[in-house]
Amino acid sequence: MYKVGILGATGAVGREMMKILAERQFPISELRLFASSRSAGKVVEWNGRPVMIQEPSEENFRGLDIVLGAAESDIARLYAPEVVRAGAVFVDNSSAYRMDDDVPLVIPEVNPEDVKLHHGIIASANCSTIITVTAVNALNAISPIRSMVASTYQAVSGAGAGGPVELAEEVEALRTGKPVQPKVFSHQIAYNLIPQIGGEQYEGYTSEEMKMQNEGRKIMHLPDLRVTCTCVRVPVVRSHSISVTLRFDKPVSVREARHAIAAAPGCRLVDDLGNHEYPMPLDTSDQDLVYVGRIRPDLTDDNGLTLWCCGDQIRKGAATNTIQVAELLIEK
Amino acid sequence: MYKVGILGATGAVGREMMKILAERQFPISELRLFASSRSAGKVVEWNGRPVMIQEPSEENFRGLDIVLGAAESDIARLYAPEVVRAGAVFVDNSSAYRMDDDVPLVIPEVNPEDVKLHHGIIASANCSTIITVTAVNALNAISPIRSMVASTYQAVSGAGAGGPVELAEEVEALRTGKPVQPKVFSHQIAYNLIPQIGGEQYEGYTSEEMKMQNEGRKIMHLPDLRVTCTCVRVPVVRSHSISVTLRFDKPVSVREARHAIAAAPGCRLVDDLGNHEYPMPLDTSDQDLVYVGRIRPDLTDDNGLTLWCCGDQIRKGAATNTIQVAELLIEK
Repeated sequence: MYKVGILGATGAVGREMMKILAERQFPISELRLFASSRSAGKVVEWNGRPVMIQEPSEENFRGLDIVLGAAESDIARLYAPEVVRAGAVFVDNSSAYRMDDDVPLVIPEVNPEDVKLHHGIIASANCSTIITVTAVNALNAISPIRSMVASTYQAVSGAGAGGPVELAEEVEALRTGKPVQPKVFSHQIAYNLIPQIGGEQYEGYTSEEMKMQNEGRKIMHLPDLRVTCTCVRVPVVRSHSISVTLRFDKPVSVREARHAIAAAPGCRLVDDLGNHEYPMPLDTSDQDLVYVGRIRPDLTDDNGLTLWCCGDQIRKGAATNTIQVAELLIEK
Repeated sequence: MYKVGILGATGAVGREMMKILAERQFPISELRLFASSRSAGKVVEWNGRPVMIQEPSEENFRGLDIVLGAAESDIARLYAPEVVRAGAVFVDNSSAYRMDDDVPLVIPEVNPEDVKLHHGIIASANCSTIITVTAVNALNAISPIRSMVASTYQAVSGAGAGGPVELAEEVEALRTGKPVQPKVFSHQIAYNLIPQIGGEQYEGYTSEEMKMQNEGRKIMHLPDLRVTCTCVRVPVVRSHSISVTLRFDKPVSVREARHAIAAAPGCRLVDDLGNHEYPMPLDTSDQDLVYVGRIRPDLTDDNGLTLWCCGDQIRKGAATNTIQVAELLIEK
């Protein structure tokens, strides 16, 4: 049995982690929940028992085996050293440490062996990257992926618990003829699309867009992988979708790809256009599999394939993946 | 002054054509509106005068100079021969004749000269194709486009007047806890995405997806253009958006591309990520320009660029483009 903490327990991902730890019957003897002073002292129920939220500190981390990071990067950076000094392993969902050389970046279905290389911190990947890489990794085993062109369709809950609230408020404001006043997003998201997630990072690409290349390279051990990504916020509550065109070293047939994805851990093949069956956000919400469909040849490159994948970014794209990493940790 | 008819006058595109003919002061001495027997006999107002809707027939087309086609393909196929026999030119928005060798397929900003080649029928292109090709044609002038990878984000009004009604009904049903019953779309579209538009046509691609390649080739006079397209319906009322990655014969710089698009007819450059300025459906609805932004190097190909464009698919993507073609016709 393990003593486990959650840093950022009151956010969208933290709350989902609590649910999933119970669901997966993670062997926990003690759960400690950490959040800002605003929430500290409040008591929440977990698995039938009351747990008091406390402020994060080295002192309060002491005795824990694992701390799951569900907070933003700046909070993760602030407390990771204290978690490590307190003797726990920090399994972090934020982007703070993902690209650090001595921090493994892990999707359990893709590179579980990398967990062993940790020095106190292990990172879980970006949500869209997890969904895309879980979908395409089985194809990478047939022939190495040279490049990907990805366009994302990202749900509002990817911006945290405030995202769905803002979408609902805007839909209601429009219904009742009141003004729409965006706070979480830079523009109205109801009945609109916002083609920016994150700030500008490289050559006109946003930080969110560059994660697909940088994290994809590290997770799949493909240092030369080239990725062009466009990240777009869409008025969907939950589950991110990605349209991705892949180029391989050698041709991969649609038939081979379908077989590989049907057999891949973490994936579900949903690919029957004639019967209107393909991955959709509504169908992939509140579960852990990445749905993959619309697999067809890339008409622009003989070594290419194109496909559509969809997954719950709060679960597999964040909370579940982080907990799966913690499960690998206790297996060893 | 010209005598003009609209075939399919009561649909989303037909109604928009009436509005745009008045707006652009198309020189009309007589407007005749054609629709099915369900609507025939009804009187609508156009430009301050009453116009009675009539059933389409060779007899009723007689005396007209131009008939604008705003109906579905099957209706267009049924009546095009009668329009031509009656002595009018049929400028058709449907897909019925677009790929016919003796029918010019025209976007006035791209290939206006093709209008001259008509034998009674001229076709206006698919909505997403018009928006994308209007956006990228200026780049094709710098260096021929070899290939495009496009992912679309298509508004519900692209499915006709019933699309926005269905989206509104679903949002209301969800708000009031009633069951959602899709009719226009194959699945719930409220807060969801449907990665299928059109039926299966070629190698797992839908008819809508293949239009981007087939029509793009014909309009830009690029017979070898290769296009991989993924068409997705999104819960946006109006304006289609397209994420497109282009590969050219030779490298085209972001700077060159920005200049070319800023100067291109029918385009507006909206490209300032730092100030959260980029094309969005809300901003491009109810006007005729295609907004283009997020222009950046394609990180997967040294001869590539990637960009995001957005336009009102009922106006520039259908009604306006068809009327612009008619304007070219009366110029000659």
